[in-house]
Amino acid sequence: MQLTRPYLLFLGEATSFLDAKTAAGLRDWCPADVVGQYALPACSVDLGLPVLTPAEAAARGAGSLVIGVAPVGGAIPPAWWPTLFAALEAGLDLVSGMHTRLGDIPGLAAEAARRGRQLFDVRHAGRHFSAGTGQKRSGRRLLTVGMDCAIGKKYTALTLARDLAARGCAADFRATGQTGIMIAGRGVAIDAVVADFIAGAAEWLSPANAADHWDVVEGQGALFHPAYAGVTLGLIHGTQPDALVLCHDPLRATIDDYPHCPLPTLAEAMRQYLTAAHVTNAAARFVGISLDTSRLDAARRDALRRDWEAEFGLPVIDPVRDGAMRIVDVLLREFPCASN
Amino acid sequence: MQLTRPYLLFLGEATSFLDAKTAAGLRDWCPADVVGQYALPACSVDLGLPVLTPAEAAARGAGSLVIGVAPVGGAIPPAWWPTLFAALEAGLDLVSGMHTRLGDIPGLAAEAARRGRQLFDVRHAGRHFSAGTGQKRSGRRLLTVGMDCAIGKKYTALTLARDLAARGCAADFRATGQTGIMIAGRGVAIDAVVADFIAGAAEWLSPANAADHWDVVEGQGALFHPAYAGVTLGLIHGTQPDALVLCHDPLRATIDDYPHCPLPTLAEAMRQYLTAAHVTNAAARFVGISLDTSRLDAARRDALRRDWEAEFGLPVIDPVRDGAMRIVDVLLREFPCASN
Repeated sequence: MQLTRPYLLFLGEATSFLDAKTAAGLRDWCPADVVGQYALPACSVDLGLPVLTPAEAAARGAGSLVIGVAPVGGAIPPAWWPTLFAALEAGLDLVSGMHTRLGDIPGLAAEAARRGRQLFDVRHAGRHFSAGTGQKRSGRRLLTVGMDCAIGKKYTALTLARDLAARGCAADFRATGQTGIMIAGRGVAIDAVVADFIAGAAEWLSPANAADHWDVVEGQGALFHPAYAGVTLGLIHGTQPDALVLCHDPLRATIDDYPHCPLPTLAEAMRQYLTAAHVTNAAARFVGISLDTSRLDAARRDALRRDWEAEFGLPVIDPVRDGAMRIVDVLLREFPCASN
Repeated sequence: MQLTRPYLLFLGEATSFLDAKTAAGLRDWCPADVVGQYALPACSVDLGLPVLTPAEAAARGAGSLVIGVAPVGGAIPPAWWPTLFAALEAGLDLVSGMHTRLGDIPGLAAEAARRGRQLFDVRHAGRHFSAGTGQKRSGRRLLTVGMDCAIGKKYTALTLARDLAARGCAADFRATGQTGIMIAGRGVAIDAVVADFIAGAAEWLSPANAADHWDVVEGQGALFHPAYAGVTLGLIHGTQPDALVLCHDPLRATIDDYPHCPLPTLAEAMRQYLTAAHVTNAAARFVGISLDTSRLDAARRDALRRDWEAEFGLPVIDPVRDGAMRIVDVLLREFPCASN
């Protein structure tokens, strides 16, 4: 699957940045591949990109309109369909990370075929996976895990892969969600795999590698998420991580969109993640904590960092503010590279 | 989905009873719906049923040939295809619980259409599910959980549903695997659901019900199974069980087919199951332990039962030998019914 770049980011009727996290991730991680944004009138999110219609974006060289918002349930609302047809008419391909396939929208596949355009459903791997083996394989793996969905697991993994590479370590970002796949150009949307093959797909995603090579795997969901924890657990078992980083938003007290589901403490979350990880890697351990501190004042941020560093003996970072070098330091110390 | 009964059970080239557990389950739990067995020459399993060709079975009134064996990986081997065509020719429908669809076998769908016969893939629900809500719903739920796959979870659930009904409680067996669905005539093959919707499918399977009604839900996999634990965790979260029964084979020391994966202790397994169950039902608790003691002598069986009853304060049963009344006694005591 080779997506057609650069992208026009479609924001639909998003009213929060959480809804538009796919678009924001593309803006932050592959800005050279993004020409602008386009939204419906009800949208109140602005990514600060040039506002372009599909025709204007095509005139500036865009290759695809990317659906950059994730509505609850994963379906593409009929209100968005006219924009998708307009993009095809303007000569753009379409890229979607929804569970619903673009081809399920009445007439869209025929219109794309008529205009010689392509429909990319990055959430559908288009291949079958095997059951997990649980067999140890060579190479090192780090998995970001979280207190909830949409809490920095992808951002942290991208930052770690970048900072490991900057220190001379061989490292690959391994995408497990639609935005990550759009950024990396490859990966497996692990939440769209048939349930029996979650761990097997995770094994396939990070194959055997050189002994000091790092796969930095994007985590999904949370072990205590009432809807998605099965995805999380299979991803942990198949990844067999040597190292884990816990991602958190200190202002999040309950699961997003599930106000009846409180979050556990960080210590309890770590305990559950280690129990799960030890099933396929007895040496799995935490190497850091990654926080979204964007809505905290400096005093609160510093206090939290100090308290949790003391409690857990691990570096506490905000990857947006600080990068991930302090966690890379731990990795280099505990897992020496031949080249360092 | 209404399957055409009675069944002719096809055993393929099975060489162990574990391979033929689907066929054995149908023989044990709906014997009036089974007319006979049929196998290829390499098969060494005998269920003690009349041996009938598809044509002979059709002459005795059979409605379907059921694939009663589960090969590793879930694919239907080409060596079996001639039998499937012969069954259609004899006038039988086909029923399969494989991941591979019957319609993927070259020419089979066309042959079925030509003869006016139906292909039933019970592992494929043919419907979409929503994400889990984690919202509490009325009615009571018991889930069987296990130390491994193929360790008595379905058998225990069927026995509990039967024994609850015998004591005057409203109770339904809720099938989550292919054999259970063939026995019950309905259900969801939870391991074939898209990973994001495991918990949602489990919520759909046991909907809100009368306050003292029991859904007895068939468990799947194990929380510490390196391939299938994601299915197990999503099923627990979606079922929101009030009561759990732990199923075990005392001679099983490692995960079946995964000799590098040792089983935890029963106490550790219970701790992990309760941690998972408490995410969506803080009152979840164990009410019994169900053992397969078929390969133990009487002294060993009695000693294990005595030791584990003392350690856990729960009834320890073998559902094949003893039924499940001692666990039903616990349920009636701890969850009084209006009618008892």
